[in-house]
Amino acid sequence: MSLTTAVTRTKRAFNFNAGPAALPLPVLERIREELLDYRGTGMSVMEMSHRSPEFEAINNAAEQNLRKLLAIPDDYAVIFMQGGGSMQFSMVPMNLVLAGKPVDIIHTGAWTAKAIGELQKGTLHNIAGSTEAEKFLRLPRQDELKLSAAASYLYICTNNTIEGTQYHVLPESKAPLVADMSSDIASRPVEVGKFGLIFAGAQKNLGPSGVTVVIVRKDLAERADRNLPTVLQYRTHIKERSLYHTPPTFAVYVLGLVTEWIAAEGGLAGIEKRNEAKARLLYDAIDGSGGYYRCPVLSASRSLMNVVFRVAGGDEAAEKEFANGAAARNLVGTPGHRSVGGMRISLYNALGLDAVQALVAFMREFQRTRG
Amino acid sequence: MSLTTAVTRTKRAFNFNAGPAALPLPVLERIREELLDYRGTGMSVMEMSHRSPEFEAINNAAEQNLRKLLAIPDDYAVIFMQGGGSMQFSMVPMNLVLAGKPVDIIHTGAWTAKAIGELQKGTLHNIAGSTEAEKFLRLPRQDELKLSAAASYLYICTNNTIEGTQYHVLPESKAPLVADMSSDIASRPVEVGKFGLIFAGAQKNLGPSGVTVVIVRKDLAERADRNLPTVLQYRTHIKERSLYHTPPTFAVYVLGLVTEWIAAEGGLAGIEKRNEAKARLLYDAIDGSGGYYRCPVLSASRSLMNVVFRVAGGDEAAEKEFANGAAARNLVGTPGHRSVGGMRISLYNALGLDAVQALVAFMREFQRTRG
Repeated sequence: MSLTTAVTRTKRAFNFNAGPAALPLPVLERIREELLDYRGTGMSVMEMSHRSPEFEAINNAAEQNLRKLLAIPDDYAVIFMQGGGSMQFSMVPMNLVLAGKPVDIIHTGAWTAKAIGELQKGTLHNIAGSTEAEKFLRLPRQDELKLSAAASYLYICTNNTIEGTQYHVLPESKAPLVADMSSDIASRPVEVGKFGLIFAGAQKNLGPSGVTVVIVRKDLAERADRNLPTVLQYRTHIKERSLYHTPPTFAVYVLGLVTEWIAAEGGLAGIEKRNEAKARLLYDAIDGSGGYYRCPVLSASRSLMNVVFRVAGGDEAAEKEFANGAAARNLVGTPGHRSVGGMRISLYNALGLDAVQALVAFMREFQRTRG
Repeated sequence: MSLTTAVTRTKRAFNFNAGPAALPLPVLERIREELLDYRGTGMSVMEMSHRSPEFEAINNAAEQNLRKLLAIPDDYAVIFMQGGGSMQFSMVPMNLVLAGKPVDIIHTGAWTAKAIGELQKGTLHNIAGSTEAEKFLRLPRQDELKLSAAASYLYICTNNTIEGTQYHVLPESKAPLVADMSSDIASRPVEVGKFGLIFAGAQKNLGPSGVTVVIVRKDLAERADRNLPTVLQYRTHIKERSLYHTPPTFAVYVLGLVTEWIAAEGGLAGIEKRNEAKARLLYDAIDGSGGYYRCPVLSASRSLMNVVFRVAGGDEAAEKEFANGAAARNLVGTPGHRSVGGMRISLYNALGLDAVQALVAFMREFQRTRG
């Protein structure tokens, strides 16, 4: 069965959820086909021992697929963990902080705020840049950064799901760059060698929730105190190739299928083209609406993954009506994050251009009839 | 569709894996049926926002099913976490240790060894009992325990998967009892009120890997220092009802289906009868083999979940032949843990009596032809 051909047999929603999010239909169909009997084993992947040769092959394939897609150099480890970004907000400083050297962090929204919250529990740190005063509607420029002379690392969030911003040029620092890439990993080519550590929950571009990808330069993992809890040391999972303890086997399996699907779509170069086309169509519709729809994010910082906009000057009644009208047309997950309001359209890898076309058609109809 | 009727459409193995382990066939069939379109939503559970009303209902149902099955009192919280037992080995002391009061722990095998390993990183503790000198072939009796005058808690592992032992009478202590119940939770009725905290990875009796159940008396969760990482405080997950961060949504969904299936099988009283019948059949076959098969565990400590035995006096060639012969007859997962050798048969909830009957028939055949 090929992962590129799909036959829709049921009603499927156009799913703009911010994560967990849409998965490729051929991946779901493959999962369904293999659910009771994985390739002749007589059992579901969920029922297989994580020490079985079958699961070891699944685990290896998921790692190798990611290595190939992201062109990950050999001096980096790729590990599958649990606990999501929230766990990483603590694990990164536990493992990577060097005595007396602060963590530099660029504050760009709700997710860096969470990371800062954990640093405030006793880790020396420096807010090297922030656009909080501008409501995070753009990302700080290099010339605005106040980097420490000797930082343990520089921390960023590459794509801010709630605020709708994304780095298109990476900040530079002498310290290793650590990135929360949860919402744009594998959405475009990335030079992994520029980073010390990348982490990402899988539930946006790579699979279901429950598995967290960590890509870490192996020498940095050796910074950690061996007295830390074993399960919270990156080196534990590197040494055991993500099998130190029972992994979230099914989530790793689905991640393997999704990465296989991305490869079949032309790898990250192909996916980037798809993602750019989707974002262009939507931003053009917003910018061409004569102000009825308005994206507050400055154009150099706009995200290709999460497009935020207001309706009718931020009229909450109109926005609610928009969300309801969209849902009635099978366009699901359009409301913005509860902390900021407005609309948010997530355009992760698995979402097709047809979904954006349907949304844009609805936007025009809504403006015509309601505007 | 009922969870009690099942029609097998594919070859299914008799699955004696120690975890991840067999799931009920009707549960797998339900998952397959709902995989592309969960009850008219037009999406898979994997694609649904964890903030959606649909997932909140799944999350609530999973919690309520567990509360009902285990008759969990209202002063206990039930939370779904990530990281498995390995994470709990560190989280429990982080959250529950009181200044100057040691952790009492009863050492009964490989899993308590791991818990002790984490305590050795700086937590005051006392090995209150151990059968290590007897190779863990029984559990310590109450009169052998050396409990601290004022312990933070008493820690046990209720079922030792590798050694094949299980508590049939709980140890008593003035301190709260904390139990690693990973491999026998929901396999028999339990008086939750006797415990301060119970944790269990779901992947044996409750679902797939990737979700960890924690049942904790709410007042104990308040012992924790608020300066701990937010994600490592039980109170965080209690307050947010397991939705502090993105949960492993699909694993929670499957756990909800499995608990529904257990209820349909007569709840824990019904499941206990099934489990006792399976274990009796197998232990009788071992004990009645004239010594060809031999279970080294003392009878008062034998596990209903994991039955360990040696073949032909521990002849490794015979044991390998046994495992291969079993696999050829679709009896999967019979080898013992690599650290102890021999055979290990896991009899978790989802395994049917028919599987044990098939195994026992093979054991007789093997003894007749090879013995």
